[in-house]
Amino acid sequence: MSVFKKIINREIESNIVYEDDLVIAFLDISQATKAHTLVVPKKDYQNIYQLDEKTAGHLFKVVVKISQAIKKAFQPDGLNIVNNNGAVAGQSVFHYHIHIIPRYKGDDFSIKYVNHSQDYSKEDFIKIKETIINSLS
Amino acid sequence: MSVFKKIINREIESNIVYEDDLVIAFLDISQATKAHTLVVPKKDYQNIYQLDEKTAGHLFKVVVKISQAIKKAFQPDGLNIVNNNGAVAGQSVFHYHIHIIPRYKGDDFSIKYVNHSQDYSKEDFIKIKETIINSLS
Repeated sequence: MSVFKKIINREIESNIVYEDDLVIAFLDISQATKAHTLVVPKKDYQNIYQLDEKTAGHLFKVVVKISQAIKKAFQPDGLNIVNNNGAVAGQSVFHYHIHIIPRYKGDDFSIKYVNHSQDYSKEDFIKIKETIINSLS
Repeated sequence: MSVFKKIINREIESNIVYEDDLVIAFLDISQATKAHTLVVPKKDYQNIYQLDEKTAGHLFKVVVKISQAIKKAFQPDGLNIVNNNGAVAGQSVFHYHIHIIPRYKGDDFSIKYVNHSQDYSKEDFIKIKETIINSLS
């Protein structure tokens, strides 16, 4: 059983900030930044591919609501929403969760993007686009 | 007018993979990784604090749907969902947007978290929790 399931079941103590029938939210023990919070569906979804529509929609409404509360409470300079699916993407607990990470000037959280636009031709872009569209239908 | 508004209005060309009344999704020109896609509400929300409930819920359903399609199409090893609010958090276009970033072994996208659990006492955690709860109500 995952650590999050144990938190949901009250087998492990945690700092719960919000709870309803579908979702629970609690402070991340690592506090990557102050007030770093996780929003977690109660049902055992491992990753984003498994989420059903109803849970997905409700979950994100809760993410927005808690982000607004953190903004009001701590006045961070910025805020990141992050969700990791798969070990390669940094997932360490295999029960779906969304990170709310308030940002403060000089903090040590960071996201590194490299611009790869030069690696793709116009035709490459069109091919990628069409591949996604075909997989949506 | 932001570059995303111009994409929505078809004043700038882009590679649109999905569109409905509330939301549009298109390839990120930077392609931080292959099939890097943005999901954007059509209305001018600057950041997560401004999102209304209906848009938030619908937006994330679309994020899930497109993530599933990208998984099916490109079989990435992982996938990150990222949203940046405020310049400090890495926001560069001030029209709300969610990044879908498929991950492949050996790619150069990364997220750096530092574990700060040692910096907080049990009482600190309780105080942070209560501050958030008070701001939720």
